[in-house]
Amino acid sequence: MFAPLQNDTFLRACLRQATDYTPVWLMRQAGRYLPEYRATRERAGSFMGLATNVDHATEITLQPLARYPLDAAIVFSDILTVPDAMGLGLSFVPGEGPAFAHPVRNEAAVTRLEVPDLDKLRYVFDAVTSVRKALNGRVPLIGFAGSPWTLACYMVEGAGSDDYRLVKTMLYARPDLMHRMLAVNADAVAAYLNAQIDAGAQAVMIFDSWGGVLADGAFQTFSLAYTARVLGQLKREHGGQRIPRIVFTKGGALWLDEMGRLDCEVLGLDWTASLARARASVGGAAGGPGKALQGNLDPNVLFAQPAQIRAEVARVLDSFGAPHVDRSPDPATGLPVAGPTHIFNLGHGISQHTPPEHVAVLVDAVHAHSRQLRRQGAARPA
Amino acid sequence: MFAPLQNDTFLRACLRQATDYTPVWLMRQAGRYLPEYRATRERAGSFMGLATNVDHATEITLQPLARYPLDAAIVFSDILTVPDAMGLGLSFVPGEGPAFAHPVRNEAAVTRLEVPDLDKLRYVFDAVTSVRKALNGRVPLIGFAGSPWTLACYMVEGAGSDDYRLVKTMLYARPDLMHRMLAVNADAVAAYLNAQIDAGAQAVMIFDSWGGVLADGAFQTFSLAYTARVLGQLKREHGGQRIPRIVFTKGGALWLDEMGRLDCEVLGLDWTASLARARASVGGAAGGPGKALQGNLDPNVLFAQPAQIRAEVARVLDSFGAPHVDRSPDPATGLPVAGPTHIFNLGHGISQHTPPEHVAVLVDAVHAHSRQLRRQGAARPA
Repeated sequence: MFAPLQNDTFLRACLRQATDYTPVWLMRQAGRYLPEYRATRERAGSFMGLATNVDHATEITLQPLARYPLDAAIVFSDILTVPDAMGLGLSFVPGEGPAFAHPVRNEAAVTRLEVPDLDKLRYVFDAVTSVRKALNGRVPLIGFAGSPWTLACYMVEGAGSDDYRLVKTMLYARPDLMHRMLAVNADAVAAYLNAQIDAGAQAVMIFDSWGGVLADGAFQTFSLAYTARVLGQLKREHGGQRIPRIVFTKGGALWLDEMGRLDCEVLGLDWTASLARARASVGGAAGGPGKALQGNLDPNVLFAQPAQIRAEVARVLDSFGAPHVDRSPDPATGLPVAGPTHIFNLGHGISQHTPPEHVAVLVDAVHAHSRQLRRQGAARPA
Repeated sequence: MFAPLQNDTFLRACLRQATDYTPVWLMRQAGRYLPEYRATRERAGSFMGLATNVDHATEITLQPLARYPLDAAIVFSDILTVPDAMGLGLSFVPGEGPAFAHPVRNEAAVTRLEVPDLDKLRYVFDAVTSVRKALNGRVPLIGFAGSPWTLACYMVEGAGSDDYRLVKTMLYARPDLMHRMLAVNADAVAAYLNAQIDAGAQAVMIFDSWGGVLADGAFQTFSLAYTARVLGQLKREHGGQRIPRIVFTKGGALWLDEMGRLDCEVLGLDWTASLARARASVGGAAGGPGKALQGNLDPNVLFAQPAQIRAEVARVLDSFGAPHVDRSPDPATGLPVAGPTHIFNLGHGISQHTPPEHVAVLVDAVHAHSRQLRRQGAARPA
């Protein structure tokens, strides 16, 4: 059904297999910083007009790949499609971000919540299939969803928040309601991601964008446990191919040891994390278990000049250190030996104000410097 | 000049000396959640009308102490008084927060920056002296300032920000300008805090509210190093009394080991930190060096019901664990033996929406449960 994959660097790195260079993609790479995105959005009229139209979503997903030699595509969509399908009435107010017409603020509203009919999300799965076809095997396609906790934040607050007062009030005052909502969210997210895998997604990512606002203890109980509940239900492979699962908790570096015990292949890190420390704690040793690491340049670096962007890219790559280069098969499994790997990304979504030509500098710097790191690593005795 | 101190629990805990119970105060305890604050503010007309009027500032500082048996007072002021005195033109737009008329956005503006004439901040020092007198020795008075980095965020952005794009652009594109601004800020903050100590402040706190938005590496270079520069210039004692110095970096728990090497007595923690882990890493052993720890309840807990507030308070106190109770003098110094201590606080400022009666529950729960912890600790063999 789909063309064979020509560039498997990203998928190999997700599985902690040796690669010739460090793969790179950027969160929100198909977005407002690109003039061609803004032009398509103007034609579509609204964000949901873009996301629900398969042709628009396909066009937009591919826009950054036409400019930059990125190593993965991520389907153009939004984490809030799932609560929208639950009947919360999503809209995007220009300049103000997402809002729900029917936020979940009391027991009756929580009790009404159900895993939505996946047919209401058909437009997402159709977009996944369409993008996968349009990619024609060029790079792998990532599907995604919000974490149960992050969805709950929006579902209760009804919009973005700077103090999370309403959702945390429910958490502390009515933990029973919060657990019920998170359970529904987890099962909905798992079904949603599995349907994206069936539709053609070759990796999936869970965005726990607001996990980092929780108190120690509450994070483990109300975010991590439900991310784990999603992971436990996800398909491990499809059509004979393994489907790597990425978990990204913004502000989660503090809890990295605990995240290291999640049943997933990749952990995403924001810019506050030290890749060196993360590799030491959860990256694993060559031949042993561990997580691939994804991240973690501050998106604001892209406002500096090219020489400074190159220097900061090198600093991030050097912080991870010499990557795993062993391509021999594991005698036990016949699969390639696994070892610490790094997928370059930003620590959060790219800013709409980013000069597009600076992204070209970043992608080139990642590819060039990471090849150089491998040459240096190979020259060094093991 | 000032009445003798009747309740030294907070100061003893700052110095890692044994106390009968865990002292408690709350960041922003004199603030909008109190109807009496709102009444005074209405009379004053504006936030700066309050802060610059010694009588108003004194009245407001004491308001929470009239309601609750708190163990410390903090002078009513704002971290942005220092850049205002530098000529940036501070105003508070109702509902929008602070704004500067003349943000610092280019080389010329950075070059013009100087440590301000402290006479322009006389109203703060007068308020400190007035509050200290009005306290009449009831509890100690804390003075405070913003960290050099946190001030720089507001000075460059000109107001609050959700992505810190302008200040980080300067940091990455013109690190020379950023270092110059931070050096001026550090020297200004040090002079400002020393003048508060001279005026009567019995402890001082540096609020690094935005340290946690920096990337690993950048935090150490652009926040921590300049906080250290402030600390190096601060008075250690005044009138024969030690003046404890508290450093609070919101989102800084990730860098606690590095913060543990700061030349200060107390580290403040937000709610993402584990007090148990913090105590193990920087709290020190009985008789050895270490930091007192301050924090770290999520302010949103105060929206739950009293029983839940009590349970969460107990969880925070239990997480720190049995406090140091040895009151014997150190044979080497003759001073009381130092050991791990905890000062209860929120992990950030109290919300304006907090029911005042819930604060009474919190303060009582801290005092009651921490006395119980000490009884349990004393009953247990060492």
